[in-house]
Amino acid sequence: MTARLEIAYDGGGFAGWARQPGQRTVQETLEDALATVARRPVELTVAGRTDAGVHARGQVASHDGEPQSARALNGLLPDDVAVLRSEGAPEGFDARRDALSRTYRYRLLAREAPDPFELGRALHVRTRLDRPALDACAAALVGTHDFTAFTPTETYHVRFERDVMRAEWGDEGGGVLAFWIEADTFMRRMVRGLVGTMLAVASGRMTVEDFETLLQGRPRDEAGDTAAAHGLYLESVRYLSSETG
Amino acid sequence: MTARLEIAYDGGGFAGWARQPGQRTVQETLEDALATVARRPVELTVAGRTDAGVHARGQVASHDGEPQSARALNGLLPDDVAVLRSEGAPEGFDARRDALSRTYRYRLLAREAPDPFELGRALHVRTRLDRPALDACAAALVGTHDFTAFTPTETYHVRFERDVMRAEWGDEGGGVLAFWIEADTFMRRMVRGLVGTMLAVASGRMTVEDFETLLQGRPRDEAGDTAAAHGLYLESVRYLSSETG
Repeated sequence: MTARLEIAYDGGGFAGWARQPGQRTVQETLEDALATVARRPVELTVAGRTDAGVHARGQVASHDGEPQSARALNGLLPDDVAVLRSEGAPEGFDARRDALSRTYRYRLLAREAPDPFELGRALHVRTRLDRPALDACAAALVGTHDFTAFTPTETYHVRFERDVMRAEWGDEGGGVLAFWIEADTFMRRMVRGLVGTMLAVASGRMTVEDFETLLQGRPRDEAGDTAAAHGLYLESVRYLSSETG
Repeated sequence: MTARLEIAYDGGGFAGWARQPGQRTVQETLEDALATVARRPVELTVAGRTDAGVHARGQVASHDGEPQSARALNGLLPDDVAVLRSEGAPEGFDARRDALSRTYRYRLLAREAPDPFELGRALHVRTRLDRPALDACAAALVGTHDFTAFTPTETYHVRFERDVMRAEWGDEGGGVLAFWIEADTFMRRMVRGLVGTMLAVASGRMTVEDFETLLQGRPRDEAGDTAAAHGLYLESVRYLSSETG
C-alpha cells in the first residue's frame, strides 16, 4: 500500500523540510509522529523540499504502507504543522516523481504602515512599486526559460530550463500583493530570486527588458536579491487526477 | 488641536486595551510611543476598550494636540501593534463619544484539521455546525434588543439595550466562518457571549427560539459560554464623515 499526505506548516520555526542533524525540520517532525502512530519507522517522499522559513499550505508527501489517521497525527504534531488529509494512493505513488507541477505564492505587504497580522507572513516593502512592471515581468515568465540567474551558483542541475504554466500578480487587499507561479519543477530559491529581481524592476533599479534577458540563462550575479523566506508559500501540487483520490 | 489615530494590534500579547498596573496593555504601549515622539505625556481616548487577547484591525483613538507621524510611531512600537493612520481631526473630536457604531468580526476555523496559519487568529471548532441555524441567529440579532444575557452579571450599565445595524455570517474559505456585527455600542464580552451561544445553537444544544428569547433580557446563566478572545477582532468604527477627515 501507498499513502498520500497533504500538509500545511508555518515555516518560521523550521530549518526547512529536509532532515538535518541537530535541526528542527518538518520532515523529522512528521516522520516522528507517523512512526508513533504506525508503530514502525516511516520515510516520507515530498513534492517540494522547502527551504528554512518557507511556508506550505498544500505540501504533498507519500509513504509506504497504510495511511494513518490525520486526527491521530494532528493530536501528536506541534501547532505549526498540520495534516490536512491522509489517504490511500495508487500502489507506488511517489509525491515527488509523480507531481505534474508545483504552485508557489509570494506575499508582499506593499504599503507604508506595518500590519501585525502579516508579521512573518508577508515581506514588508515600503518603497513604491510599479504594478504594471510587476505584471510585465510575470507575463514574461510564462513559457520555457533558462533560470540559471535565479538559483545559487553552487546548485547542480542537469538542466536549468523550467516550464512555467502560470505567473501572475494579484491584489489580496489590505496592501498585500501576491505573486503566483506554477511550473513543472523549481530550482533552489528560484521563486525568491524571481521576486527579489521583480522588486528591483518595480522600484526602478532594473528594466523589464533586463528581466527578460535574465530569463535566457544569464549568470546569478546579474539578477536581484533573494527575497526573504517568510513571504513564500508552497500552495499546491498537481497530479494526474487518478493519483489524487 | 485634536488628533485621530487608526490602529491595528494582535491582542495575543496584551492584557487588553486599558492601562492596568503591572500589565502590558495596548494603551500604555501606544501612549509611551506618543509621549516619546511628542516629548510630552499624551492621553488616548479609545472607541472600543478591547479585552485581553482581543485583536483590532481598525481601532480608533483620539488625543489632544498635533497628530504625530505614523512612521515615527511605528518605528518605536513593537511588532504586534501598528499605527495605520495619524491625522488631524475637528477640534474636540472624541473617538469614544463621537463613534456612531463599532463593527466586530469573530472568526471560527470550522473543520476537523487544524491550520497553522489560524493559530491565535480563529477559534478552532471541530463539531459539525448547522450553518442555517447560525444564519437564523444572526438575522434575529438585527434591531434593538436587551443583551443582559450576553454580558457578565457584575457589569454595571444604565441600559442593556443595544441597536444592531448588521449581523451576518460569512464564509472566508479554508474552513473559516466569520461573524460580523455592527452596533451602536457593545457591552463587555457581548460578542463573545453571542458567538458562544450561537455555537450552542449550531451544535444542537439550544434552539434558535431559545436564542431569540435570550434577546429579551434573560439572565446571563441562560446563555452559552463566552467564546475565546483570540477569535475576536474590532474591525472598524464609524463616525460622521465630517469627523473622519
